Amino acid sequence: MKTTEQIMQDAKRVCPGLALADTETKNKALYAMADALVQAADSILAANAEDMAAAKGRISDVMLDRLALTEARIESMAKGIRDVAALDDPCGRTISETTRTDGLRITKIAVPLGVIAIIYESRPNVTSDAAALCIKSGNGCILRSGKDAWNSARAITDALQAGLAAAGLDPLLVQLVEDVTRESSYDLMRGVGYIDLLIPRGGAGLIRACVDNAKVPCIETGTGICHIYIDGKADLQKAVKILVNAKTSRPSVCNAAEVCLVDGAIAETVLPMVKKALCDDRAAEGKVPVELRLDEKAAQIIDGTAAGEADFDTEFLDYILGVKVVDGVQAAVEHIRAHSTHHSEAIVTEDPAAAAVFTASVDSAAVYVNASTRFTDGGEFGLGCEMGISTQKLHARGPMGLAELCTYKYVITGDGHIR
Amino acid sequence: MKTTEQIMQDAKRVCPGLALADTETKNKALYAMADALVQAADSILAANAEDMAAAKGRISDVMLDRLALTEARIESMAKGIRDVAALDDPCGRTISETTRTDGLRITKIAVPLGVIAIIYESRPNVTSDAAALCIKSGNGCILRSGKDAWNSARAITDALQAGLAAAGLDPLLVQLVEDVTRESSYDLMRGVGYIDLLIPRGGAGLIRACVDNAKVPCIETGTGICHIYIDGKADLQKAVKILVNAKTSRPSVCNAAEVCLVDGAIAETVLPMVKKALCDDRAAEGKVPVELRLDEKAAQIIDGTAAGEADFDTEFLDYILGVKVVDGVQAAVEHIRAHSTHHSEAIVTEDPAAAAVFTASVDSAAVYVNASTRFTDGGEFGLGCEMGISTQKLHARGPMGLAELCTYKYVITGDGHIR
Repeated sequence: MKTTEQIMQDAKRVCPGLALADTETKNKALYAMADALVQAADSILAANAEDMAAAKGRISDVMLDRLALTEARIESMAKGIRDVAALDDPCGRTISETTRTDGLRITKIAVPLGVIAIIYESRPNVTSDAAALCIKSGNGCILRSGKDAWNSARAITDALQAGLAAAGLDPLLVQLVEDVTRESSYDLMRGVGYIDLLIPRGGAGLIRACVDNAKVPCIETGTGICHIYIDGKADLQKAVKILVNAKTSRPSVCNAAEVCLVDGAIAETVLPMVKKALCDDRAAEGKVPVELRLDEKAAQIIDGTAAGEADFDTEFLDYILGVKVVDGVQAAVEHIRAHSTHHSEAIVTEDPAAAAVFTASVDSAAVYVNASTRFTDGGEFGLGCEMGISTQKLHARGPMGLAELCTYKYVITGDGHIR
Repeated sequence: MKTTEQIMQDAKRVCPGLALADTETKNKALYAMADALVQAADSILAANAEDMAAAKGRISDVMLDRLALTEARIESMAKGIRDVAALDDPCGRTISETTRTDGLRITKIAVPLGVIAIIYESRPNVTSDAAALCIKSGNGCILRSGKDAWNSARAITDALQAGLAAAGLDPLLVQLVEDVTRESSYDLMRGVGYIDLLIPRGGAGLIRACVDNAKVPCIETGTGICHIYIDGKADLQKAVKILVNAKTSRPSVCNAAEVCLVDGAIAETVLPMVKKALCDDRAAEGKVPVELRLDEKAAQIIDGTAAGEADFDTEFLDYILGVKVVDGVQAAVEHIRAHSTHHSEAIVTEDPAAAAVFTASVDSAAVYVNASTRFTDGGEFGLGCEMGISTQKLHARGPMGLAELCTYKYVITGDGHIR
């Protein structure tokens, strides 16, 4: 077994070669990686069948579905890689350029970070997605797959490496960590001098462990306790439409709403509408009704579960919604300040002043006026792709696309200039 | 004594108010802070005299000089604050704006980070510099001064807080940590939820301690093992002029050169010129001659000290220079890759191909062609100021100005848009 230390050393050694590769070479490699993935479909499916058999009974059906591969899913992974090839190269871009009066020229240029490590869980498609984004952005890539998906990840990585080699790039630019114990994650977190950026992609526990233990630069991603605030001056039809979309269109994702704040001024009108749309109508249509966890004031107006202490600090990722009556936009801002994970929050209002207070005061990656929080996504934001959604403020905030996988350097050209 | 925890809580509580303040309010506060500093000159000098008396004999003369304040130095600190007031406000700037075909408008806006903590050593001027940069960029500020300068820092902070109050802003936006034991630095490093950015400013030991122990986002600053590579096709007059400037104009700063790499092709010609300029001429002029630490090949050409193993990995910050003969630009790049701290490196050459290889391959914040590394500085780069020089790749690289003390958020405006 190759040690994680050896893997990091190899990544560091080969990544400068990729940083110097031109766009054409990188794209050629991406197309070859996509082709190799499709060609290796049989062995990938066989490896995935092993993972599925081992995981059955041990993980939930939802997780099993995430783990499962089919020929169509492999095709879709390959298409994902080709889509990345079609995006603009984020490297080499001149960010700014100035020539001083003494003739010294200072150019700020986008360059790759170096080596990016991704620690993830049981989605095999992360393996190819992350690798494609790293290669396009000129970064070497170390993948630490969850144990449940390891055989699948191995087979996928083998194919990607074959693609890299076919295009004349070093296959070690994409490596899978071989040690599936917890220790290898810690090796990456402590890989000072090797790892330029660590990105955890997964549940809150994984992300917390990385942020707490990483000695290398790490980006916190994904946890979303997203709020929808229905203001006293909201168009209530719009409000209910946005809330239904934000809560129920895909409750398991991080940009889904978890809490609805309702202005006391319209609570008696809008809460019954909320209950009808989220509970009664859905039940009548044979869909899962949303369980409402109500604060005291809301409970005086509609039926539901009494909210416990933790219900306004929980990412349910399920058909559950915390509901709280607040006294206007400022109180909504205060609640969000105390309970938000700084991911995405929305106000529904026809009052520009309330909207302005909300967007200026709410300190989250994405702040919405009259739109669903579900739009927080690299594709929706026009980045073309996404490595995750940063909920921290340093380096990148919100959806991380190719540009966010780069740093910059200053190139200064003189003619014997001294200071 | 106010605990560091209380200080962090207060900073978190008051910083949203500053984030909402307009440019005029912030500038008014900065001018008031500058005025208050000058008005408090007597008490600041008295506090500084206490620090000087306590430090005498315990710290070096160079450090004592850094610690010492005079009326002129206080005036210069006040001028520094007024200079920051005159700079453009980095907050509120629209970084990008797009309207999708469905009418959803996505705006990316520069906003303050929140609370910035600065851990520094014995320069009292850092107290006012750092506070001014934080206020201008809309950030609350926690200052953790070195013990030797604590009384000075206290008196300066008192004045700055009086200025804030006079301008109607909360004085707690600038706070000095009261606990001068090591524990308070660790409290800041572990201030998750309170500290949005930690910036250590000081020696390598302090920076290492922060990077190793911080659980909050931290930016590595300042350590500079900077290289000057004299290529085979260099204009040797230029090369010597640049080397003399980079090594001797201010050896104690991080952008000073520590190592000179010389192409073997011209070593026999240029090394005697280097020795004459750095050693013999300086001695003749009554200046400190530079001690040359020579690798084997260089030692065959000129006299000097034999380089020990550590001499190519040491930030001397003194009149000492490592000298090594290498076999062309690629070998220079390899040496730099293995020994650089990713701060600033220069090539001297008239060959555009060699310059292109060097600038593309050297992975440092600032890469120079025919210019001195001494230019790596916020003022020289046109940023108007500087909070430090980042030697890491995430968020900010090279000189950190006001823009680098900001993050961004997305504000998305719709009209009932759902996904």
